[in-house]
Amino acid sequence: MAKTLFERLIDREIPCHIVYEDAQVFAFLDIAPRSPGHTLVVPKEPAATMDALSDGAAAALGAVLPRLCRAVMRVSGAEAYNVLQNNGAIANQEVPHVHIHIIPRRHKEEGLIMTGPTSKLSREEGEALALKMRAELLD
Amino acid sequence: MAKTLFERLIDREIPCHIVYEDAQVFAFLDIAPRSPGHTLVVPKEPAATMDALSDGAAAALGAVLPRLCRAVMRVSGAEAYNVLQNNGAIANQEVPHVHIHIIPRRHKEEGLIMTGPTSKLSREEGEALALKMRAELLD
Repeated sequence: MAKTLFERLIDREIPCHIVYEDAQVFAFLDIAPRSPGHTLVVPKEPAATMDALSDGAAAALGAVLPRLCRAVMRVSGAEAYNVLQNNGAIANQEVPHVHIHIIPRRHKEEGLIMTGPTSKLSREEGEALALKMRAELLD
Repeated sequence: MAKTLFERLIDREIPCHIVYEDAQVFAFLDIAPRSPGHTLVVPKEPAATMDALSDGAAAALGAVLPRLCRAVMRVSGAEAYNVLQNNGAIANQEVPHVHIHIIPRRHKEEGLIMTGPTSKLSREEGEALALKMRAELLD
């Protein structure tokens, strides 16, 4: 399978603004930032979506996230920020390689603006859904 | 300090629709879902924001995320989904305890709708910013 853009960044075939690297994780600046300091964090394991990532790679990604968030905050000066990870084209994923966005937000109108309604979960719906979820997770 | 809502859920003081629990992680259905199957995943460690979470708790949270995403996909029937974690009231955080949203998306108009412009990072800005980030991460 052809390498994704992010594998090519990791392999230094295409330049990017690297901010962090270890044996399992690579982080760099988004070239189309939603706000100054917008950073992408990717596992070196080439999974397209979070559900396809190994537990070990996902743990390594999680472990460095607090530290990377602190660095983004200090450098951007933002005290608020959103962490976002999109899976599937319908959900705004552009590169088929897991990537976590850290998006600083200095004020309400900056960075990741979210819209879309919420509904109310009824007790019956919730019980039925949670039962199915727990059954899936027993596998 | 008073317990947050999520600590009270973890401690079974308030009922919720639990979908998963282990020594470090707790997951349940959002009662104000953006789409059917909207699930919240929280560390038991009571950190308000990702930058304040311990590396170990963040790794534990990461490790179970692929499995929880697979369960949400199977039960909701959605092939696409967004993973979102908000930090700070300005960034839409409502409960001051780290929580990761898994939000199914069956079509473009469902779930987490994102707006807000992106800009273009110049080479000079990128180099200066990445240098500062790397310096922060050396600490």
